[in-house]
Amino acid sequence: MAKTILSVPKGTRDFSPAQMARRNYIFSILRSVFEKHGFQPIETPSMEQLSTLMGKYGEEGDRLIFRVLNSGDFMNSVPAEKEHTSSEVIKHISEKGLRYDLTVPFARFVVMNQNEISFPFRRYQMQPVWRADRPQKGRYREFYQCDVDVIGTRSQMEEAGLMDILDSAFQKLGVNVMLKINNRKILQGIADALGVSERFVEFTVSLDKLDKTGWEGVGKELIERGFPTDVPQKLMDIMQPVNSNEAMLTQLKKYLVSEAGMKGIAEMEELLGFIDALELKSQVKFDVSLARGLSYYTGAIFEVSACDVAMGSICGGGRYDDLTGIFGLPGVSGVGVSFGADRIYDVMMELNLFPENISRTADILLINFSEDSAAGLMKMAKKLRENGIACVVYPEAAKMKKQFSYADAYSFPYTLIQGPDEKAAGIVTLKQMCSGKQVQVSETELFSFDLNQIGLLFI
Amino acid sequence: MAKTILSVPKGTRDFSPAQMARRNYIFSILRSVFEKHGFQPIETPSMEQLSTLMGKYGEEGDRLIFRVLNSGDFMNSVPAEKEHTSSEVIKHISEKGLRYDLTVPFARFVVMNQNEISFPFRRYQMQPVWRADRPQKGRYREFYQCDVDVIGTRSQMEEAGLMDILDSAFQKLGVNVMLKINNRKILQGIADALGVSERFVEFTVSLDKLDKTGWEGVGKELIERGFPTDVPQKLMDIMQPVNSNEAMLTQLKKYLVSEAGMKGIAEMEELLGFIDALELKSQVKFDVSLARGLSYYTGAIFEVSACDVAMGSICGGGRYDDLTGIFGLPGVSGVGVSFGADRIYDVMMELNLFPENISRTADILLINFSEDSAAGLMKMAKKLRENGIACVVYPEAAKMKKQFSYADAYSFPYTLIQGPDEKAAGIVTLKQMCSGKQVQVSETELFSFDLNQIGLLFI
Repeated sequence: MAKTILSVPKGTRDFSPAQMARRNYIFSILRSVFEKHGFQPIETPSMEQLSTLMGKYGEEGDRLIFRVLNSGDFMNSVPAEKEHTSSEVIKHISEKGLRYDLTVPFARFVVMNQNEISFPFRRYQMQPVWRADRPQKGRYREFYQCDVDVIGTRSQMEEAGLMDILDSAFQKLGVNVMLKINNRKILQGIADALGVSERFVEFTVSLDKLDKTGWEGVGKELIERGFPTDVPQKLMDIMQPVNSNEAMLTQLKKYLVSEAGMKGIAEMEELLGFIDALELKSQVKFDVSLARGLSYYTGAIFEVSACDVAMGSICGGGRYDDLTGIFGLPGVSGVGVSFGADRIYDVMMELNLFPENISRTADILLINFSEDSAAGLMKMAKKLRENGIACVVYPEAAKMKKQFSYADAYSFPYTLIQGPDEKAAGIVTLKQMCSGKQVQVSETELFSFDLNQIGLLFI
Repeated sequence: MAKTILSVPKGTRDFSPAQMARRNYIFSILRSVFEKHGFQPIETPSMEQLSTLMGKYGEEGDRLIFRVLNSGDFMNSVPAEKEHTSSEVIKHISEKGLRYDLTVPFARFVVMNQNEISFPFRRYQMQPVWRADRPQKGRYREFYQCDVDVIGTRSQMEEAGLMDILDSAFQKLGVNVMLKINNRKILQGIADALGVSERFVEFTVSLDKLDKTGWEGVGKELIERGFPTDVPQKLMDIMQPVNSNEAMLTQLKKYLVSEAGMKGIAEMEELLGFIDALELKSQVKFDVSLARGLSYYTGAIFEVSACDVAMGSICGGGRYDDLTGIFGLPGVSGVGVSFGADRIYDVMMELNLFPENISRTADILLINFSEDSAAGLMKMAKKLRENGIACVVYPEAAKMKKQFSYADAYSFPYTLIQGPDEKAAGIVTLKQMCSGKQVQVSETELFSFDLNQIGLLFI
């Protein structure tokens, strides 16, 4: 047999116990914050009908959906008389695709379960998504999204609630973030003020690059796209940097006089009022240039970036007035945020923010002295576990050195040793691995201890 | 636009919040038991190279693997001169498949990470797997497996440890189970004693059906397969039911004299000794007919069935001496068990074993009296959350009746109401939804309470 070089598919990853411990640390903090805010979990299948997915993410998105081949004699459905090009064949051999995000499946879920759901419905969802993107640093073909959405109310209390969730979650994770907000209607108002209402999408695509290319780049792009030559200067006037969110509102009020613009300002004022009341710990910045790609946002737009490291956005979201309309349930407004778990992980690794000792095999390794002590050690482990102590019996009577190296390799904080004399006397020796300290305790005492009490033995 | 009928792919399911709460209840008990025994989580990608998956699950298994279509102009790789049959085309248009189980990806993981792993390596893995099987009751195309394996030791202490895990997990879940064990070497010894060593696989395939078809069925099948006519009677003699595991060992010793047979008996004696010492709560049955389909088991074989409901096996596993050999790392022995989470769920539903109230939105719904109380209610909710209380502010000043129906729909145990007079006086009214009881407390008191203390107000 030819030797195969083992690999996982491009852009996908295995997660080791240490990585899992860190990932679970993130997930459990998010989950706990979501649940404190009354969000409930749902899950949707990894595969969706292609008819559910296609056309929801733009042309580029459609191309990036992983398609699952039909089972059985799939070529049988391909008309023999047609030329077998990819674009002809694909229509006949694949009906399912892998989930591309969590928003479209959520919309489908809501529509399919509309009669069982009481609105407003608050759900969170933490599942992998797949995109056939070119893998690069920080971009994977399989990655987790953690989405939290409220659907069925237009109240901006929910926008504020999501800001509170973002703030609490990153406080608990120890990540210093900037919460950026904007409103699609304000962007519309600016386009109206510039007289380019009809070319709104093109306008926002250019404006969204302000972060990356600066005013010069944005101005150049607008001119290249054939916008009137006075647009860049006017735009700079409208968006001139000021030193507070309130000052920005005041400035915008001078220019934004269209219906959309005034509505946008009113919404932003209300939201900033709620946010003020909540006294968030993170900086909240009303960022007029924030547009984000997704075209289904209709009101508030959110983005979160880490302050102490360059990583791009680690969360994004916004209000969408008609997400379920594509599936035949119009007029149900929702607002949500998606946490990019993999980027948050990368930020926390770079800033060294994970607590120590979140990954260890167990609390105690029971050293195996001789074959005939096996049953006794297993019984001892069982009693320790009943007191909440996680433990492992080394499964072979190997050399001491080997067993202690094993305890080190897996960061067991304690080892337990019971030689024949100790066994006869009903005592054991506990060793604290970090200090090398050893103490003897009776079995009776030991079996009354929880992990905390064992720790106290070494003080 | 034609109205589409929304659906999820055949054999896949959405999980509602209530279902998620029950599923998470199972997962968290399993996780906690696994971790008490020193197992650490890993995850592997949903997609694997087809070269990793193919040929590992038999011909039938290969057919059931979901294949992912290559991205881009996939037909370009298909030789134009060949006839475009499915079997010809498939070789060129798909390189990846969805995970079919957790064992093969684990073997690949171990081989790829052999230099970073200290053996014995104890891992658990809880992820969905996909099979293009014909869906039917209890059989899905996407379902979760929860696998726990130790790799890198031949010690049967690990078999006993897994039995302890099975026992603890089902005790905690409240499911009354029978733990069945056997040993492949004992099956081999029986085949040797019958003089059919060369047809071992065929023999076990027939024997494995004893549960379903009884002795008559097994005997008939053996004859049909062309085994010597005295085989069924001899087999019945060897396996004659007795009333204890020890009696079965004694009986087998009379017949099993081949090397494999004697080794199997010795292993079973050792394992039963360990299990006796552990004093498990569940019944452990040495079931000589237990074979299980998977041919990679080389020693112990496990199966778990629920006692109070007919559901088939809900867990299975065993010892495999050479799982990583297929990937170029021979001689690493492992033993593991796979929990079928979906079947366990079905058993628990049928026996009504889930605790009540595991699914609720949050602890308190804050009733929204008027638009201008919004900010105040949000601040109040924030303070309650700081004391660990999960709460939701109803986002609109809707009619009381609507808000209270909402509290019922989502099983909020409490509602909080603060009318304008109460607000002025700095008090709130808490209502216990199940009893209808109401109590007034001051805001100061309220913000010092945790959920437990709120419960005490209603006693």
